[in-house]
Amino acid sequence: MVNSKPKIGHNKKSFLDKEIKHIDITSFDSRKIIESMGKMSFASRDTANAARIFNEMIKDKKCSIFLTIAGSTSAAGCMKIYSDLVKYNMVDAIIATGASIIDMDLFEALGFKHYQGSQFQDDSQLRESYIDRIYDTYIDEEQLQICDKIICKIADNLQPKSYTSREFIREIGKFLKKNSKKKNSLIEIAYNNNVPIFCPAFTDSSAGFGLVMHQENNPKNHITIDAIREFRELTEIKIKSNSTGLFMIGGGVPKNFVQDTVICAELLNKKVDMHKYAIQITVADTRDGACSSSTLKEASSWGKVDISKEQMVFAEATTVLPLIVSDAYHQQHWKKRDRKNFSKLFG
Amino acid sequence: MVNSKPKIGHNKKSFLDKEIKHIDITSFDSRKIIESMGKMSFASRDTANAARIFNEMIKDKKCSIFLTIAGSTSAAGCMKIYSDLVKYNMVDAIIATGASIIDMDLFEALGFKHYQGSQFQDDSQLRESYIDRIYDTYIDEEQLQICDKIICKIADNLQPKSYTSREFIREIGKFLKKNSKKKNSLIEIAYNNNVPIFCPAFTDSSAGFGLVMHQENNPKNHITIDAIREFRELTEIKIKSNSTGLFMIGGGVPKNFVQDTVICAELLNKKVDMHKYAIQITVADTRDGACSSSTLKEASSWGKVDISKEQMVFAEATTVLPLIVSDAYHQQHWKKRDRKNFSKLFG
Amino acid sequence: MVNSKPKIGHNKKSFLDKEIKHIDITSFDSRKIIESMGKMSFASRDTANAARIFNEMIKDKKCSIFLTIAGSTSAAGCMKIYSDLVKYNMVDAIIATGASIIDMDLFEALGFKHYQGSQFQDDSQLRESYIDRIYDTYIDEEQLQICDKIICKIADNLQPKSYTSREFIREIGKFLKKNSKKKNSLIEIAYNNNVPIFCPAFTDSSAGFGLVMHQENNPKNHITIDAIREFRELTEIKIKSNSTGLFMIGGGVPKNFVQDTVICAELLNKKVDMHKYAIQITVADTRDGACSSSTLKEASSWGKVDISKEQMVFAEATTVLPLIVSDAYHQQHWKKRDRKNFSKLFG
Amino acid sequence: MVNSKPKIGHNKKSFLDKEIKHIDITSFDSRKIIESMGKMSFASRDTANAARIFNEMIKDKKCSIFLTIAGSTSAAGCMKIYSDLVKYNMVDAIIATGASIIDMDLFEALGFKHYQGSQFQDDSQLRESYIDRIYDTYIDEEQLQICDKIICKIADNLQPKSYTSREFIREIGKFLKKNSKKKNSLIEIAYNNNVPIFCPAFTDSSAGFGLVMHQENNPKNHITIDAIREFRELTEIKIKSNSTGLFMIGGGVPKNFVQDTVICAELLNKKVDMHKYAIQITVADTRDGACSSSTLKEASSWGKVDISKEQMVFAEATTVLPLIVSDAYHQQHWKKRDRKNFSKLFG
Repeated sequence: MVNSKPKIGHNKKSFLDKEIKHIDITSFDSRKIIESMGKMSFASRDTANAARIFNEMIKDKKCSIFLTIAGSTSAAGCMKIYSDLVKYNMVDAIIATGASIIDMDLFEALGFKHYQGSQFQDDSQLRESYIDRIYDTYIDEEQLQICDKIICKIADNLQPKSYTSREFIREIGKFLKKNSKKKNSLIEIAYNNNVPIFCPAFTDSSAGFGLVMHQENNPKNHITIDAIREFRELTEIKIKSNSTGLFMIGGGVPKNFVQDTVICAELLNKKVDMHKYAIQITVADTRDGACSSSTLKEASSWGKVDISKEQMVFAEATTVLPLIVSDAYHQQHWKKRDRKNFSKLFG
Repeated sequence: MVNSKPKIGHNKKSFLDKEIKHIDITSFDSRKIIESMGKMSFASRDTANAARIFNEMIKDKKCSIFLTIAGSTSAAGCMKIYSDLVKYNMVDAIIATGASIIDMDLFEALGFKHYQGSQFQDDSQLRESYIDRIYDTYIDEEQLQICDKIICKIADNLQPKSYTSREFIREIGKFLKKNSKKKNSLIEIAYNNNVPIFCPAFTDSSAGFGLVMHQENNPKNHITIDAIREFRELTEIKIKSNSTGLFMIGGGVPKNFVQDTVICAELLNKKVDMHKYAIQITVADTRDGACSSSTLKEASSWGKVDISKEQMVFAEATTVLPLIVSDAYHQQHWKKRDRKNFSKLFG
Repeated sequence: MVNSKPKIGHNKKSFLDKEIKHIDITSFDSRKIIESMGKMSFASRDTANAARIFNEMIKDKKCSIFLTIAGSTSAAGCMKIYSDLVKYNMVDAIIATGASIIDMDLFEALGFKHYQGSQFQDDSQLRESYIDRIYDTYIDEEQLQICDKIICKIADNLQPKSYTSREFIREIGKFLKKNSKKKNSLIEIAYNNNVPIFCPAFTDSSAGFGLVMHQENNPKNHITIDAIREFRELTEIKIKSNSTGLFMIGGGVPKNFVQDTVICAELLNKKVDMHKYAIQITVADTRDGACSSSTLKEASSWGKVDISKEQMVFAEATTVLPLIVSDAYHQQHWKKRDRKNFSKLFG
Repeated sequence: MVNSKPKIGHNKKSFLDKEIKHIDITSFDSRKIIESMGKMSFASRDTANAARIFNEMIKDKKCSIFLTIAGSTSAAGCMKIYSDLVKYNMVDAIIATGASIIDMDLFEALGFKHYQGSQFQDDSQLRESYIDRIYDTYIDEEQLQICDKIICKIADNLQPKSYTSREFIREIGKFLKKNSKKKNSLIEIAYNNNVPIFCPAFTDSSAGFGLVMHQENNPKNHITIDAIREFRELTEIKIKSNSTGLFMIGGGVPKNFVQDTVICAELLNKKVDMHKYAIQITVADTRDGACSSSTLKEASSWGKVDISKEQMVFAEATTVLPLIVSDAYHQQHWKKRDRKNFSKLFG
């Protein structure tokens, strides 16, 4: 419950006393709820329709499925949903913000936790305790700095050349195979299953801090991140797949980046189809003309998304995402699906 | 143009081909989902917290529970949720918009239906077919006019004097006992269980049309609606209950009206407590200063709502309401609860 | 905790130290801004388009203009805009929430003030000081109770029969002519100019408190509010006008009520046109199916609003309303417009 | 006005018949409006408060001002506002999405235009005409592809090594000095005034298409974009400035990136203050935990933004940004301010 009263004798420990537990979509079966919602209206019907389209993607054996993640749902209890999507072969490539992958997923893989907090908390008290707040969720800033340093250390041990974020995250996967405290992080499971992870704005995260330190420590011999080649890589997956579906949590750079692969392929004179299926869960307001909130119909004017199988779900993702993915898990169409192993495309 | 694929050869029937089916919260068990959401963050945790507070209200035998309904969730597939809340003794009085009770609940009790439509449909085509649209939901306007006329007829048969909306809706309940085509409407179940229903802006609905016709047909001898006495009646329930909880779907007049009973009781020199429990589900934006969106913390500044057990859930209600009520149903605390029979208070 | 810096030595006076000053749309000329916005996109173009349609209404001499007010913009600094709209003959009838007319406009006419506050203030401290909060605005609750009592006193002095809210508010106008401390309240100016004011959910406000006290003090001989006849009165204005325009601030009951007059007229077998012009300023989210947020296109499916001259402006009204009305004031089309004097329709 | 009727005989020209004209904030004086808004409540007061803080930044001679741009306001009529902010020395560095700088600003510098369209337009018709839609704004896709190719050509002519987006945009500035059709683009004016522009997710835009083509055409000898060094560069500006203010339009990567410079500086063992002033205009919903919507109070928990001089303005930027900047322009504090010439920092 939201607490209006200041914590008496507050100190770091009292702020960080309730760990976020990530929801397990295999522990309940949402099929009946989703089926019922499909007969209703408003956001419930949109949710059910998104679930239906997601199941269609999974059933369509030719379709490659891209998961995009923006926002902080990984911190907020959806982290296991994302790794389960890989584990149960429901996504083939991931495009995410650096924060989702580094600050949240790697962070927990290192054994750290997110905590339940309050959006009404006086932030100056948090500041004194070195606690970072994401809406109603707390993070120990000292632990986050360890995360920065791990990134620096991984970079220090790499051959100094240019990497795509996908390549670098693959190196993190290798690191975690040996060093992770929490097994089953998204990075590690994706590594094991050859599901590539792209972070098109990689430095805009804890990774950025680590990599700046790395370059500072190694002024002559350091790695760089080549975001151009990375876009080419993702486009290669689009070209190889042709038939594709998008499952988008939030908008941001990941949404735009994956949609743009259609255009990029065209510019490379490769004939590809628009993304055939597309669903997005967002609370963004369409009226500001930002990409995060732009409808999938709008994307179709750009030739990026096919209009026939698309669904926007205007909802805060933590409420509807567990229902959609639990439904898909229990529908079991993923059992008949081959792994795409896209990581192998790049050697 | 709005519609990307106009219905070819559209006619009324083709628009009205998919009935809304109201979700049955007894047909699935959301307890595990709600429990998991309680360990997450953002709107999922708020949803779980609202469920917890609702269960507390039900367990607290002294507490009278007010359900308020604004918006169009009854049309959108939540109609059975509301009647189940009465059937399973989880609410003791209802304050609603006229539309929810007359245009939607009475409408379906008369055998009419709501239909799945599209928010992208060209409205001029709907207009030609006499179809009314609520976002993505369709209504046959000719059927709605029958609903207006039933109201007129019921009024014509009443003794010409002033009625509160509660009294008038009770007369509709009597009418439905004999004439309803769909049993188990909210009005009929509430009638059977002595749960009073108030519509503080009663004429702002199909009831208004029927009652204007009634007065027009009976210029000298007609009924009136006394909204002042009605406020006094609702306040009487607050006074008799003292300990109260609010379960609010949307905001609007119902939300404000029931909160105001605390102030009204004080002005009548009755000592009552603030509402002890309060939850609200809404998509409204707090920043416009409207009551619909005002937080429950704000209400506490007015002395209306106790701050300790309140939860705003910012979500479109059709997505989270089924989860909250299914949880409460399966928790079964309502089994140990006596009916309050507030309708009997007024003879 | 909510407040990051609690007021030290806070007391009532320190909370109520900054009066809201109502914006004077004659003191600046927004024509150039509106003209520029008309060449842009997003909400600025919508704002300019709304201004254009409002000017069209004013130029159209046959058109009667209805202003609807929901939300708390009167408290937030727009009170003078509304009275200026009457003073400069830009609206012919008003439909508002009880709060806008009684708790805010009458309240200030009695000499009381609204104050600048903070949405981050701890509400329990406000509660202790008997201060009510509307988002970031404060009200002295003791003064509000005086307002309740004035309503009671006015009712006590009336002949005990049924009144429409319009009739009752007209009586308040008479009272203010003699007793107002602040001249130029909306009620008083509307009274002077025969502009009727309707509050379809009148008891859902400070008026409700006063009128309940009145009935309690006069159990046998008291007034009632006849909301049915009131709807008939407003419909009569629609019938007499035929050509009509809507200028809607927020949604709620006022929006729905005025739109419904078209249907009501039809049911009375009077041939009327749909509302020819319609603009609405709101922050409401269309996706919840509530009337407040329903688009004007949706209203056209109901046969209420003509689709050709309508504009939704999705903005918090205090930011764009001053621009729209200042533009209309300086365009001066109102100078060639006759007063409709609708109050005289009812004797 | 929004047109519900399909364009008869629509073709590309008929869709692209109304150019967006960018608002000129020197052509009207908003000081009186802003002053009045400061005495009101809700979003108008927030707007006035943001204007006040922006003027404080400008008056504070030690303060370096960062402008961040996300969303599509440049396309929507605010493009001249941004170049005027540089022209009149009110910002010292810019952090923007690639789309704002390349797809919009460079695009118009090349002589192309944005057009007024409709959010209700059938996108499949636009697709057929090769028109891209941003909410209610249209772009000629063939022209946008020319923009891609210009980027490719500029890259082809550069020495093959790693560049920061700042360095690359500076090269575009040089190119425009010779080749621009529209003078006074943001890129060109920033180039002339040594105001660096950073695009931390540079490839997520038309730039990405051009640069992928460049690498494809030059498989061995091509440029790369080093986003790590770029973050280091921006951090250097923070370190050199110490006292800083943020003027943020939308959120996204630019917002997060500039806020993170405080942390980055600390990790480099440089003692810097938090950003002293911060204002953000956004329609984002705080409740999803995304950075775009995170409040500036939340940012203070991370040690990024000082809590004393911050203001969130929840509004669609095209409505309030012209008022804020026109006020600052006419306040003229910029006249006493020295240029920072940060581009010179990097040789």
